[in-house]
Amino acid sequence: MNKELSKKKQQHYIIDCDIHHDFPSPDVILPYLSDRWREHHLTYGFKEHHGFVHSFGLYPPVSPFASRQDGWPHNGARPGTDLEFMKAQHLESNNVKYGILNTLFPVQTQLNDEYARALARAVNDWQIKEWLEKDSRLRASIIVPYENPEFAVEEIERVGKHPGFVQIMLLCRSKEPLGRRKYWPIYEAAEAYGLPIGMHIINGGMHGNTSSGWHSYYSEVHTSLSPGAQVQVVSLVCEGVFKRFPKLRVVLIEAGFAWVPSLMWRLDKQYVKLKSELPHLKRLPSEYIREHFRFTTQPMEEPTVPKHFYHILEHLGSDDLLLFATDYPHWDFDDPLKSFPVKIEQELKQKIYYKNAESIYDFKKGEIR
Amino acid sequence: MNKELSKKKQQHYIIDCDIHHDFPSPDVILPYLSDRWREHHLTYGFKEHHGFVHSFGLYPPVSPFASRQDGWPHNGARPGTDLEFMKAQHLESNNVKYGILNTLFPVQTQLNDEYARALARAVNDWQIKEWLEKDSRLRASIIVPYENPEFAVEEIERVGKHPGFVQIMLLCRSKEPLGRRKYWPIYEAAEAYGLPIGMHIINGGMHGNTSSGWHSYYSEVHTSLSPGAQVQVVSLVCEGVFKRFPKLRVVLIEAGFAWVPSLMWRLDKQYVKLKSELPHLKRLPSEYIREHFRFTTQPMEEPTVPKHFYHILEHLGSDDLLLFATDYPHWDFDDPLKSFPVKIEQELKQKIYYKNAESIYDFKKGEIR
Repeated sequence: MNKELSKKKQQHYIIDCDIHHDFPSPDVILPYLSDRWREHHLTYGFKEHHGFVHSFGLYPPVSPFASRQDGWPHNGARPGTDLEFMKAQHLESNNVKYGILNTLFPVQTQLNDEYARALARAVNDWQIKEWLEKDSRLRASIIVPYENPEFAVEEIERVGKHPGFVQIMLLCRSKEPLGRRKYWPIYEAAEAYGLPIGMHIINGGMHGNTSSGWHSYYSEVHTSLSPGAQVQVVSLVCEGVFKRFPKLRVVLIEAGFAWVPSLMWRLDKQYVKLKSELPHLKRLPSEYIREHFRFTTQPMEEPTVPKHFYHILEHLGSDDLLLFATDYPHWDFDDPLKSFPVKIEQELKQKIYYKNAESIYDFKKGEIR
Repeated sequence: MNKELSKKKQQHYIIDCDIHHDFPSPDVILPYLSDRWREHHLTYGFKEHHGFVHSFGLYPPVSPFASRQDGWPHNGARPGTDLEFMKAQHLESNNVKYGILNTLFPVQTQLNDEYARALARAVNDWQIKEWLEKDSRLRASIIVPYENPEFAVEEIERVGKHPGFVQIMLLCRSKEPLGRRKYWPIYEAAEAYGLPIGMHIINGGMHGNTSSGWHSYYSEVHTSLSPGAQVQVVSLVCEGVFKRFPKLRVVLIEAGFAWVPSLMWRLDKQYVKLKSELPHLKRLPSEYIREHFRFTTQPMEEPTVPKHFYHILEHLGSDDLLLFATDYPHWDFDDPLKSFPVKIEQELKQKIYYKNAESIYDFKKGEIR
């Protein structure tokens, strides 16, 4: 038996807010596409964007498909593609009560809007049939072709009431900053369907990965996912998205959280002096952030001096902001038993491991209560 | 007498690592240009880049020319253009022993390399004649057309030994991340001349101000100057610039510093796992950062809970990293008497106000010692 499988179980359950599943083979998507788009898909295929590697996955092959070395199912399939293996290696082993699937299959960044729409539909139907209907612990993010908000809303309306879908996924490298009005129809639908936006980091995009163009190394790109997320927080707050959509919640996934306090300080200090530019805001930027944003824990910030981790928790100014995530089965997976660099008191631990997620996501959607 | 001028003096001197001076009128540059480039300048003029506003200054007119409302000389000239006014309002009033002038006149981002070279020469000659030769407290950054490193090196060789020039200025919004080999000749020259690189934030550039394109508001752009600087730190470290140029020092100007610890944690954590991608690095990224980077204090980070400021100082892991700066005469000027949100102990205060700057910059360059 795998060492991973036999280890001591968590004493409490966890909600894993970031699990990556994938197609076991490129052919699996084909039955989910209409004839017209199957033909297109097979004949013309993806357009990849700068910063994506050429492989099927979106990550560089640190380990192939960015996976843990033990993340490969015994059947030789790619990591994240075999539900039975995922159950044994992760869901059961780590006492996962609910796990949210966030596929990174490259749908949203296709330049052909109609193709992106067809792929989003196919992916969501595949998620329902192959994952959500097969294990009651699994939930998933709705994949939407968000660069065409009309099509994105259409897809939210098509599957938004399905009990397995608990959030709408956007990626952090959009064509325009995500606060811009172009994307507001998506937020309107999210609010109407009671679905948070999950904003996941991504290595590729429409623009250079920095405001000075392209980095050279994966290590650089991966570090700079945080700055790429910071500018999206700034955009959503300053454009007034939360003033217009007061029930909207945004979960930043895999972007870190130790940078959040310094961003709030900078935004607040500046807002007080430049208020007249943003008359549509009615509160301090930090108040919008604490109310509307949540941050997943993986990759867990690890200060050189562990006690500095407590400072960050204190600076966040709220115990409600962090949601636990492992990033299973990727190489930088956080093990629930070892992820915190310090001992966390029981009450906060429960909040981070599951209570905060339960207050944001409707895991019992569709059930008679 | 101006209220500013009559206020209590600092008990100790300061070194102001960021003062902005400017041309009193557009004509002042003309005698410093050759016939060929004067003609070009008058006939074709600047190309401004996205994100720059149309005014002569680089900042949006929060207050015109981004200035403090009391920063306008009585003679009606623009802020930062009148040395006598600057002396009275700032150098004397704030007990400035040395002040480093960083002009933001838009030289470096001109797309025509030869024009940028001509402008850089003109600006540096103007700095010598109108500023450095007129007040012994003033020092300046050499302006270089850094997108053409050959021309940049030529300019460093031309004026690099002048006793008034204590650093080479680059801007944070470059065409490529500043760690890339394209820019290494500049670092070689910087090391050879014993001049730190001053990397100043800027609102305009060759690329969108985020990795998702353009923000809408000045408040967003101004907050996102920090993420734009973070990615440059990542680039300089990961490309191995400090391995190749072990004496090089980089001063990040006006980019903040509260984000530095979280960036070091993230880089270190990742480096340990992905070392094989960066075999040219011999130490932890945080070690390179603490040895080679310095950060100016303005705009001073102001945590909601003032004592959190102490945590940040502790997380930085060194008392040597911060250099005091006011950003005079801009709107977000930090007053030396009021800039720290908490009481700082005397020894650290001295380091930040002047000792750290004295250990990085050669203010007595050219003097017989």
